[in-house]
Amino acid sequence: MQALKQKIQAEGIVLSEQVLKVDAFLNHQIDPVLMQQIGHEFAQRFAGQGISKIVTIEASGIAPAVMAGLELGVPVIFARKYQSLTLKDDLLTSKVFSFTKQTESTIAISAKHLTAADHVLVIDDFLANGHAANALIEVIQQAGASIAGIGVVIEKSFQSGRAQLDAQGFRVESLARISSLADGQVSFLE
Amino acid sequence: MQALKQKIQAEGIVLSEQVLKVDAFLNHQIDPVLMQQIGHEFAQRFAGQGISKIVTIEASGIAPAVMAGLELGVPVIFARKYQSLTLKDDLLTSKVFSFTKQTESTIAISAKHLTAADHVLVIDDFLANGHAANALIEVIQQAGASIAGIGVVIEKSFQSGRAQLDAQGFRVESLARISSLADGQVSFLE
Repeated sequence: MQALKQKIQAEGIVLSEQVLKVDAFLNHQIDPVLMQQIGHEFAQRFAGQGISKIVTIEASGIAPAVMAGLELGVPVIFARKYQSLTLKDDLLTSKVFSFTKQTESTIAISAKHLTAADHVLVIDDFLANGHAANALIEVIQQAGASIAGIGVVIEKSFQSGRAQLDAQGFRVESLARISSLADGQVSFLE
Repeated sequence: MQALKQKIQAEGIVLSEQVLKVDAFLNHQIDPVLMQQIGHEFAQRFAGQGISKIVTIEASGIAPAVMAGLELGVPVIFARKYQSLTLKDDLLTSKVFSFTKQTESTIAISAKHLTAADHVLVIDDFLANGHAANALIEVIQQAGASIAGIGVVIEKSFQSGRAQLDAQGFRVESLARISSLADGQVSFLE
């Protein structure tokens, strides 16, 4: 997706060979027009697949997921990473290890909002080592729901997440695929 | 806002006289069409005010804020409640006490994305005791930015937040104002 790649080149900051900071338009400040374009792109790529629900994870997945949900005409669920007073019954949970934070946390989705009848599109901001995506897949499968695919805004293709998801047979659609962050430069696959 | 009030009556769950659960369309599962209507309503109420930026707080404020930002044509910043690897320099911070969680946390905004030139619309999902709104106001004022007003999706008018913000002279626009959650019933102010 050309507009996204241009935005990454213009406003992304390479913090290390592993970490790209996109706080200017996705992870802290959000560009709503770009989010709408991203939602449109996801909706086009997964059109006609019978998707009934989108599942993402707080906080940075919410904006692209809601824009995709608007266009596909389906509700969005964001998995909670943190305890909530009002979210405590009938929870589907999974452990997720955050590479960037070096901590393990538990993500939770209410079983009330996800059933075996659902066909789910997973959306997340980043795909790196696949920990968040795999945790989301696990809770969705606990609900008995099926998975239409995984939509990723920015994939770090040099890390293992994409290969793992491919190996499990999931359809992955990444809007920007980064082959390297070496020498402070963002290089894209293609 | 009629569509929102109807949604609250149909899908909100009164957990106590203080707590309304709206996990079905705002705080966990999100209704993208309703979020678009909410964004439209905020944009109309604050049109022509010279707003340059929207500030909200993760996670439930993001969806309504991004929809309002799309319509007003301005970027959205979500304050971080939790530590982030890529958000650590030049931070504006404020303490916020969560009534529902009974814990104090620190919210943070990057000074890079908010300046004295900004005229800010604050958006949040709930206004109860005003702790989150006041913390957001504090970080915005630390940046030297001015505040156009506060847009709230659901106001619990029987708690003190609204009166505090009124007393400080802020313009508050709440799309649903709840006068009482007594007897398991949601009653609205008119």
